[in-house]
Amino acid sequence: MSLAKALFTSTLARRGLPIQRVAVASNIRWYSSDKRLTEDTMSQNIRNMEYAVRGQVVIAADALQHELEENPQSHTYTKVLYTNVGNPHQVGQESLQWPRQVMALCNLPPSKGIDHPELAKVFPQDVIDRAREISHVGLGDQGTGAYSHSQGHLAFRQDIAKFIEQRDGGVTSNPEHIFMCNGASSGIEMILDVLLNGPDAGIMIPIPQYPIYSAAIACHGAHQVGYYLEEEKGWSMDMDHLEQQLADAKAKGINVVGFVLINPGNPTGQVLTRQALCDVVTFCAKHKLVLLSDEVYQDNVYDENAEFVSAKRAAWETGLLEQDAIELISFHSTSKGLYGECGHRGGYMEVVGMDASVEGHLYKLASSGLCPNLDGQILMDLMVRGPDPWTESHREHEAQKRKIYDELKAKAKLMTEGLNSIDGFSCQPAQGSMYCFPAIEMPPGAIAAAKQQGMAVDTYYALSLLESTGICVVPAAGFGQKPGRHGFRTTFLPSIDDMKQAIKDMRKHHEEFCARHSEESSKVA
Amino acid sequence: MSLAKALFTSTLARRGLPIQRVAVASNIRWYSSDKRLTEDTMSQNIRNMEYAVRGQVVIAADALQHELEENPQSHTYTKVLYTNVGNPHQVGQESLQWPRQVMALCNLPPSKGIDHPELAKVFPQDVIDRAREISHVGLGDQGTGAYSHSQGHLAFRQDIAKFIEQRDGGVTSNPEHIFMCNGASSGIEMILDVLLNGPDAGIMIPIPQYPIYSAAIACHGAHQVGYYLEEEKGWSMDMDHLEQQLADAKAKGINVVGFVLINPGNPTGQVLTRQALCDVVTFCAKHKLVLLSDEVYQDNVYDENAEFVSAKRAAWETGLLEQDAIELISFHSTSKGLYGECGHRGGYMEVVGMDASVEGHLYKLASSGLCPNLDGQILMDLMVRGPDPWTESHREHEAQKRKIYDELKAKAKLMTEGLNSIDGFSCQPAQGSMYCFPAIEMPPGAIAAAKQQGMAVDTYYALSLLESTGICVVPAAGFGQKPGRHGFRTTFLPSIDDMKQAIKDMRKHHEEFCARHSEESSKVA
Repeated sequence: MSLAKALFTSTLARRGLPIQRVAVASNIRWYSSDKRLTEDTMSQNIRNMEYAVRGQVVIAADALQHELEENPQSHTYTKVLYTNVGNPHQVGQESLQWPRQVMALCNLPPSKGIDHPELAKVFPQDVIDRAREISHVGLGDQGTGAYSHSQGHLAFRQDIAKFIEQRDGGVTSNPEHIFMCNGASSGIEMILDVLLNGPDAGIMIPIPQYPIYSAAIACHGAHQVGYYLEEEKGWSMDMDHLEQQLADAKAKGINVVGFVLINPGNPTGQVLTRQALCDVVTFCAKHKLVLLSDEVYQDNVYDENAEFVSAKRAAWETGLLEQDAIELISFHSTSKGLYGECGHRGGYMEVVGMDASVEGHLYKLASSGLCPNLDGQILMDLMVRGPDPWTESHREHEAQKRKIYDELKAKAKLMTEGLNSIDGFSCQPAQGSMYCFPAIEMPPGAIAAAKQQGMAVDTYYALSLLESTGICVVPAAGFGQKPGRHGFRTTFLPSIDDMKQAIKDMRKHHEEFCARHSEESSKVA
Repeated sequence: MSLAKALFTSTLARRGLPIQRVAVASNIRWYSSDKRLTEDTMSQNIRNMEYAVRGQVVIAADALQHELEENPQSHTYTKVLYTNVGNPHQVGQESLQWPRQVMALCNLPPSKGIDHPELAKVFPQDVIDRAREISHVGLGDQGTGAYSHSQGHLAFRQDIAKFIEQRDGGVTSNPEHIFMCNGASSGIEMILDVLLNGPDAGIMIPIPQYPIYSAAIACHGAHQVGYYLEEEKGWSMDMDHLEQQLADAKAKGINVVGFVLINPGNPTGQVLTRQALCDVVTFCAKHKLVLLSDEVYQDNVYDENAEFVSAKRAAWETGLLEQDAIELISFHSTSKGLYGECGHRGGYMEVVGMDASVEGHLYKLASSGLCPNLDGQILMDLMVRGPDPWTESHREHEAQKRKIYDELKAKAKLMTEGLNSIDGFSCQPAQGSMYCFPAIEMPPGAIAAAKQQGMAVDTYYALSLLESTGICVVPAAGFGQKPGRHGFRTTFLPSIDDMKQAIKDMRKHHEEFCARHSEESSKVA
């Protein structure tokens, strides 16, 4: 017996595992521990894909948080302030009460379920009634434990269609063309799966963008064709620039098939004008680009002079909808808005003007994942169809929503103004969404120091901010920006007190960072 | 103004939409309604992908069900009996009470939540205690509305690791290598995303197989390298055949990177022996194939002479685990077992022996979808860690599970025997899982008739069965089988009464079908 074998056999005995079950331990064959799967043999598309929202800085933040839990005295702060992801409940936003009550009742099994008399002492009658309706009509008496239709239960899709019609001033919506999904993310991925046909394919995306688009495009080894948003003009779009970018991509042999619009903007926070929307849908119709309209922040508009206009409404206003001249998919989610219910992964997409055969393939793809989760479906239904105005729950539900809205509005202003008050920071107003995306003047030494460490200066800066203050932001490079610009994305979701402190901390850090990197040759502290 | 324009403008007016908002209706430009996205321009991988479990026959079944609801007299039966998908709650299995009670409480918001005094009159104290523990420890007081760690909350992964260790007789499991996911499906898709690098890549899959594998492989335009299960020997594996298939694929230039094992079998229902498991893990180690072990039916073993052995346990018994000579990913789910909770999309995968950098990319991929849904995470936690033995809920929970198990066991036998009692049917015993996969002798006329209609004879048969009886099965062709074999997959999940009737109906249909197609030249009825 070789030494290795002897050691191995003694390990077996030491562990106290039932040796009699070890069929062949006495007659071991030895195989190489070389890996089949390495960075060189794995999917190179996945290897090359980036996803900054939970990238290097967040991994460092998680380690820091762990350290702080082990040893609260280890730093000048006692917790990590996560502003890297639009995750309102993580940073203290309380869930709305009514939808959670209905959800809870929908999950109770029949025997000790909705009809239990004591529950009437805990829940308003309208909550019990709505849960009964969902169980019977929505779920067709199959409960939350059965797979639904691959697109989600029809009754929920009917409610979504009604919501869309009302939102868009009567433009019709058909539940047959609504696909519920596990958050908007899974819908976006499905559409890109269908849309991208080989390495020549390209999609136009805004720069800056939310990185699920660049990530999904990279997964397919396809091209991202960026178009810049005009920062100085409130992150607006320049149609001439769009034409130019498209022409350049075509000239390079890229088969541009789609166009991504994010409105209200992520990470940029702008709310596009009606005219901009009409211009974009016209651009897509003219050039035959499938429009992916990310509208998950449609309820997050704080600027009183701004208004959310859906891409579908714009397609109707420009006549493109009735001409059947546009292929449009719009996305919505329970994770944003005033619900902020990220954990339940509720979402939908509405598919407009798609070729029927292609939509059949989309259905097939949705079917291979069987169905979106039922709790997310129920929550999506509750979000598009709140408590009836005459019910006990209605007033309180609306008041809770109002409170969250007012706070978000105040915090958007607070964060924008706070960032702009820091020398070297410049931040466009957050008209909507949950983010600020300041530009930061980097001292020359920082650029050199980051280069020396082989990382983008934005990442270098974000890691420094994290270490000094415990604030976790996402480097702007992860969203894309014009060459030479630097900065980060932060949410404005933490409490007002936390944000006031964060702005102070950011200012102090920036001053120290600039001092530390004031000369090009400065060494990293 | 052209007639088309005039008609369009009058439509606007007719709809009563707010005309003042129609910015450009008076100055409409006309664009082509040609589609960018057609079957020819969309992703050809998605176009070519098949997913039979919700394919043509199920779409026909849904239409039939709709027809029956509109007009219950339209057929000799009054409902569609869905046996196409392992969806227990859809066909009458009641949810277990304890996990649903805990889930419900976890979703209640703090203000009228777990601590409400009246709830103690509805729920046992141990349910309230467990929900409190989950809210505090599992969810870290963030509730179900926050995104979790991309792999799922650590406390849940710790419980999963403990479950795996206990199941595998002490073989260690590390929560850092567990990825919770939206059902096993999304885990399988993620792994194949990482594994498949370009069109030369191939994966060995059993024939017959569960079609998510062939579907996901097709999505990547990669190769499926089939290995046949030996039907006559209870769907066992022939190692010489595996060697041959691998050698043949390599000779064709296919870069075979992975191996799929489904145990207990889907659609085949066999439970592999300990020896077979040891042979498979050794085969994978020898040839450096990443092993994907689909173990979602591990709690569904009915044959008293059979035992579920995990691939990981076999890797330990063969010494491969301690040699670090195997790359293994195993999948589990809340959708099967005795929970049958399909709708909540709970699942996990355990990653063993994977290169650390590659696992980092897997984490990144998981992060791009943010996190698996929280309700599914909670349910997965409850499934791997039931009520404590001393609690009020324990006895009743175990009794409910036992009842479901006993029924499934009886139904497996009933369905196998029933199918074998039909002349021309031959069905291997379902030792486990939820399915029977009979072989059916097709009359020669049926093959000709199907060909004439351009479909597989299995599909032709399943559509005929559906129309005659209302029973919805999946054509065997959708899972793959040896050339010349025909049949279907059926679950044995409906009630015993429904299944007895189904067997009668299947027999009658088969006799009529054979009579109708007794001659090669017979016309389709």
